[in-house]
Amino acid sequence: MSLGRRIRYGMVGGGPGAFIGAVHRKAAALDGEIELVAGAFSSDPDKSRQQGEELLLDSSRVYSSYQEMAEQESLLPDGERIDFVSIVTPNHVHFHVAKVFIEAGFHVVCDKPMTNTVEDAESLCKLVSKHGTVFALTHNYTGYPMVKQARELVRNGELGEIRKVVVEYPQGWLATLLEAEGAKQAVWRTDPNQAGVSSCIGDIGSHAENLARYITELEIEEICADLTTFVSGRQLEDDGNLLVHYKGGARGILYASQISVGEENDINIRVYGTKASLKWRQENPNYLSVKYPDGPEQVYKRGNDYLSEIAIHNSRIPFGHPEAFIEAFANIYVNASRTISAKIAGYDLGTFDSDFPTVQDGAIGVHFIHKAVESGKARAWINASYTPPQ
Amino acid sequence: MSLGRRIRYGMVGGGPGAFIGAVHRKAAALDGEIELVAGAFSSDPDKSRQQGEELLLDSSRVYSSYQEMAEQESLLPDGERIDFVSIVTPNHVHFHVAKVFIEAGFHVVCDKPMTNTVEDAESLCKLVSKHGTVFALTHNYTGYPMVKQARELVRNGELGEIRKVVVEYPQGWLATLLEAEGAKQAVWRTDPNQAGVSSCIGDIGSHAENLARYITELEIEEICADLTTFVSGRQLEDDGNLLVHYKGGARGILYASQISVGEENDINIRVYGTKASLKWRQENPNYLSVKYPDGPEQVYKRGNDYLSEIAIHNSRIPFGHPEAFIEAFANIYVNASRTISAKIAGYDLGTFDSDFPTVQDGAIGVHFIHKAVESGKARAWINASYTPPQ
Amino acid sequence: MSLGRRIRYGMVGGGPGAFIGAVHRKAAALDGEIELVAGAFSSDPDKSRQQGEELLLDSSRVYSSYQEMAEQESLLPDGERIDFVSIVTPNHVHFHVAKVFIEAGFHVVCDKPMTNTVEDAESLCKLVSKHGTVFALTHNYTGYPMVKQARELVRNGELGEIRKVVVEYPQGWLATLLEAEGAKQAVWRTDPNQAGVSSCIGDIGSHAENLARYITELEIEEICADLTTFVSGRQLEDDGNLLVHYKGGARGILYASQISVGEENDINIRVYGTKASLKWRQENPNYLSVKYPDGPEQVYKRGNDYLSEIAIHNSRIPFGHPEAFIEAFANIYVNASRTISAKIAGYDLGTFDSDFPTVQDGAIGVHFIHKAVESGKARAWINASYTPPQ
Amino acid sequence: MSLGRRIRYGMVGGGPGAFIGAVHRKAAALDGEIELVAGAFSSDPDKSRQQGEELLLDSSRVYSSYQEMAEQESLLPDGERIDFVSIVTPNHVHFHVAKVFIEAGFHVVCDKPMTNTVEDAESLCKLVSKHGTVFALTHNYTGYPMVKQARELVRNGELGEIRKVVVEYPQGWLATLLEAEGAKQAVWRTDPNQAGVSSCIGDIGSHAENLARYITELEIEEICADLTTFVSGRQLEDDGNLLVHYKGGARGILYASQISVGEENDINIRVYGTKASLKWRQENPNYLSVKYPDGPEQVYKRGNDYLSEIAIHNSRIPFGHPEAFIEAFANIYVNASRTISAKIAGYDLGTFDSDFPTVQDGAIGVHFIHKAVESGKARAWINASYTPPQ
Repeated sequence: MSLGRRIRYGMVGGGPGAFIGAVHRKAAALDGEIELVAGAFSSDPDKSRQQGEELLLDSSRVYSSYQEMAEQESLLPDGERIDFVSIVTPNHVHFHVAKVFIEAGFHVVCDKPMTNTVEDAESLCKLVSKHGTVFALTHNYTGYPMVKQARELVRNGELGEIRKVVVEYPQGWLATLLEAEGAKQAVWRTDPNQAGVSSCIGDIGSHAENLARYITELEIEEICADLTTFVSGRQLEDDGNLLVHYKGGARGILYASQISVGEENDINIRVYGTKASLKWRQENPNYLSVKYPDGPEQVYKRGNDYLSEIAIHNSRIPFGHPEAFIEAFANIYVNASRTISAKIAGYDLGTFDSDFPTVQDGAIGVHFIHKAVESGKARAWINASYTPPQ
Repeated sequence: MSLGRRIRYGMVGGGPGAFIGAVHRKAAALDGEIELVAGAFSSDPDKSRQQGEELLLDSSRVYSSYQEMAEQESLLPDGERIDFVSIVTPNHVHFHVAKVFIEAGFHVVCDKPMTNTVEDAESLCKLVSKHGTVFALTHNYTGYPMVKQARELVRNGELGEIRKVVVEYPQGWLATLLEAEGAKQAVWRTDPNQAGVSSCIGDIGSHAENLARYITELEIEEICADLTTFVSGRQLEDDGNLLVHYKGGARGILYASQISVGEENDINIRVYGTKASLKWRQENPNYLSVKYPDGPEQVYKRGNDYLSEIAIHNSRIPFGHPEAFIEAFANIYVNASRTISAKIAGYDLGTFDSDFPTVQDGAIGVHFIHKAVESGKARAWINASYTPPQ
Repeated sequence: MSLGRRIRYGMVGGGPGAFIGAVHRKAAALDGEIELVAGAFSSDPDKSRQQGEELLLDSSRVYSSYQEMAEQESLLPDGERIDFVSIVTPNHVHFHVAKVFIEAGFHVVCDKPMTNTVEDAESLCKLVSKHGTVFALTHNYTGYPMVKQARELVRNGELGEIRKVVVEYPQGWLATLLEAEGAKQAVWRTDPNQAGVSSCIGDIGSHAENLARYITELEIEEICADLTTFVSGRQLEDDGNLLVHYKGGARGILYASQISVGEENDINIRVYGTKASLKWRQENPNYLSVKYPDGPEQVYKRGNDYLSEIAIHNSRIPFGHPEAFIEAFANIYVNASRTISAKIAGYDLGTFDSDFPTVQDGAIGVHFIHKAVESGKARAWINASYTPPQ
Repeated sequence: MSLGRRIRYGMVGGGPGAFIGAVHRKAAALDGEIELVAGAFSSDPDKSRQQGEELLLDSSRVYSSYQEMAEQESLLPDGERIDFVSIVTPNHVHFHVAKVFIEAGFHVVCDKPMTNTVEDAESLCKLVSKHGTVFALTHNYTGYPMVKQARELVRNGELGEIRKVVVEYPQGWLATLLEAEGAKQAVWRTDPNQAGVSSCIGDIGSHAENLARYITELEIEEICADLTTFVSGRQLEDDGNLLVHYKGGARGILYASQISVGEENDINIRVYGTKASLKWRQENPNYLSVKYPDGPEQVYKRGNDYLSEIAIHNSRIPFGHPEAFIEAFANIYVNASRTISAKIAGYDLGTFDSDFPTVQDGAIGVHFIHKAVESGKARAWINASYTPPQ
């Protein structure tokens, strides 16, 4: 870290009761390279102040709104003001916050899905390009070292040509009308005004799409979606099953569910090629299984010298000492912050530092969500190919 | 076994090099209640004779054709002639053999899929009804004790109302054009003249359909199928992914694949209800996992007193001494043979003896195969509801 | 099977309510090469008759005592009389039955532990040698194909020099004073007059010893045993933990337990060499894991072409179609019966047919049991090396 | 955190190339409650300075020796000087550093084993008592939430009376003479001058002892140890197998190994009571399995409401989002730092904040190590009961 100081950031969202804000903060803190110095933690100024106090921040840098934060931080001198903003609000706010901070010259780490409309997503792509912004989207599951190992195996041809992808993301926590009980996490995720056109596909199906694309680098051509709202009284779908045609002929099944009772957060993927197949499960993430037609199954394990350089680079502690969710999340933060450091200091970027989800990944995800909803309504196969603005 | 003698059977098919014939014979032999006494093992009389010799059969009861076998066995006295025929030929022959033996007054155990056309399947339903035939179809996976336990849990309401079913049957053995190398098992399974309209859905997708229906007792209403032939030069599909709508609103994903490299025979199922979910995998079949939203996951294990009566009834040895594929297969044989015994001797049927797949299950399976092919060609959702003749 | 007929056997023990007798019968029946034709199933003639009827045997060959059976069967002509006796009585009877039948010229399959004293065990070794008897001991766990694969890996040097062996056999079924409730299986296993000097080490520790020796071919030099009777009122130990020194410097831990509540029949082994290690668990027996210091873990799976010839030879059905306890047991029966066939017909023995536990294995096991008890009493390391009469 | 500021600490050890220093720093940083402000990272002042720079510390607080650090930090005003020291040097230095800082009025977090002699350990007990020091020993495996759940299950009687404990800690990384290649981690751990009387039992066997004692609260009465040095040229043992007698009659097996090739860091434990048993494995730490004699196995999962309060308290993120090694380590840091905060501010301690390993745990561990070595040399059972100074 050649900048000679920590990268500083401010957070928008992540006030009292939020789940993901705390995850972002722990992930950012883990490696001692990034420092939280400012925040607009809630649209309610009292709650923002309360959260700032709890986080032991200087009260002068706890703001009542993200607009105020962007404005005031801009006035601070270089090296004191924040280097980037971390956006951890409900979905519908992402775009507005990102736009304001990009235009004020800040870099961005943003939660997913990136925006609620494809138009906004494309606007962000253009803004990022125009301003030279470092923009990282927290599709955190691709931060896992063994997911990176999986991509390397595919890239190196170990699996041969990819024929089939099965990616699943079952959860069970929304199997009842939790939003009617006022559970904050449930309320906004099932509210079209905040979550957008989709709940299940938007919140977790988009992770599945990103994971499959990251590992295989296949592009979707057509989809046929079956979306269902199982819980009576719910406004958005809570289960989605998709058939997928990839460009080049590969086939896929992608499903996400919030009503799969008893499942916790079981995102997992299987990829079948002509020569071998692989399997990875997030709930036990330090292992990657590779199966061959003519030899024993091989289980790769995090932390070993036999892994690819990028998997080693994104790993912290020795084999057998498991890493997990926060470390994967932290990989996005630390890679993005090193990219920001390099940009600020004019250094060359480290070999693996640019490996985090981009604004284009965000646009592809938002487009995917809208197409899934469209196919579900049409009860038909539809074209879903897409290239975002670069 | 109140008949005072073993039930006797003859086999059609299962000559040299066949895989499933030997499985049937071992399954039938396991419990000492059933005896192989006759056979028409091949349409080539020499091969039939050779197989009969290897099996140490009386040469007078090794026949050159199934027609001859039906005819000659009919002439033998009661208690000497076969009680049932076991049909283990390629698919296209099932119907003809079954018809001849039913009409000659024999009971039938038949491999799946039952016939190559829905018409033939319905004819068999009517023949069975007319002749009072005991007819068992070897959808062997529903012979596993823990599958029976799963059905009991669903029946008892332990899972609540069923919302979602995910049933998979991935194999990898046909990932190359094995049929071009003359591999007998591959040749007939990929030949439309023998296998019928489908390879993958017919051979293994039908098992997945049967397994899901056995456990949940849900009926299919609509399907949308995506069938693919990945291996160049192959005549039938080798991969099939289906979205399923069940009557009453449950949703499903059903997939079968013969090109999933590295997978061996991984038929597995997950069923999600409003109150709990269950999971079972054939490759480690002595366990059944049940997950709850508000308590620890529970792992039921074969051979324990806390299981349902029907699971105990279909189990042979104590817990921790694993049972597997052949025992599950044997459950169909022994239950069918006890049903036959009861019929012959006029006894009442034991409580659980009638628990094996029937001719109606066969017709439902054949109908399902045809609808999957139809939907795949149409690239659309189609109605697939069906009630076979009783 | 070049004898042109099935091998015939009679059973001693295995009357109503016995567990292991039924297992032997199913294992023998599985492959259609062996036929049960006679029995002295109980020392109570009524029970013997009842069992014979249930098994549909010719009543003239159901005997009131094993002595009568040996005598009467000897009078029958070649090819009609039994070829071997299967001894499935409680331990204290094994020796007497085996002796009578060996002296009458019959071959023997005997359950373990072979005898209750080392003297008897050595007498059997000498009798077998004198009479040219085929003698198979049913240490069934070494019948599993993946155990044979494990031995091949060790033999081929894949693990390097063996340094450490950890073999465990935990069960929980005797965690209460089950014998006081009259449970037949518990009564004799905890009765010194029937089980001998040991319950836990005798019944299951001897399997662990046999499994470790089969795979590693290491010989025990010294042991230090800690034997405990946890259940008040029990006459023999129900838990035994041993430290082991093998000849050549390898170290081991061997433990067996009948009071490990919740464990079913979890015999398992880990073997660590200088180059790699292996792990196998009986409750999921189709897999064998091999771990390396510098590459992915490898999971070998039953039924694949990449396995050793002996593993393939002892396997019946394709990969992914699990085999289990009865098949492993059947491997002992079928290998022994083929050895008997070859002897009768004067044929050369098939390459792998002699692979079953011998009378010497039995003597080593009995010696081990006695040394464990001796060490436990002495609370000290003792020499336990032993070479049985050949 | 009612102190209104972060707890500040300085580190002794943890210079360039150290493994465990970085783990401590990440664990301390994770929750944003603790701040690294000073360090004496190496006995080589240049290396200490280099490490301080890399960590972006104020150079005035990077010291050339721990003595200097204790002295200089004492001179700083309250709230600026460090609140505690974190000792992450090789074993032989622990005592000297701890003594100096305790006597200078600082609290202590210390790596294990605590000291190289029982005398030093007892001195620390007395010093801690005399100075009212908060002293936390980083037996990090007891920081895992599911280990705490395990202890609660035992305490609540869910397992009944404990009969048997099997605790294992196999590693394979020292299977070759790594210390001869200059590998820093291997060099000091196998050097009697730094590691003390033991390598394997000292480094990892002591973790196993601590884990078993934490969960069961059983005290060791007698042990019989078998210690081996497998790698030629090594000065200390690299494998140790122990039989254990606990007070009250429970029996145990405890083993640790550094030559178990292919094992990574597989510390795991099974505890068997009269009513149920439990199993936990560190390499997949979010699960705790409980087995019953008369019902399904239950798998408890981290992050769920049905867990005990203390397990919930030591958990950060929702179920299905795995936590791992660093979080468990962080639990020791955060609980200790909250205890320090409460002490500084005169607040009442939070209910679960005192749950971390103490100086007495350290003394028990050191005593255990010495007794294991003594028993190994004697090749005999020896008394190993011990009560440390309070």
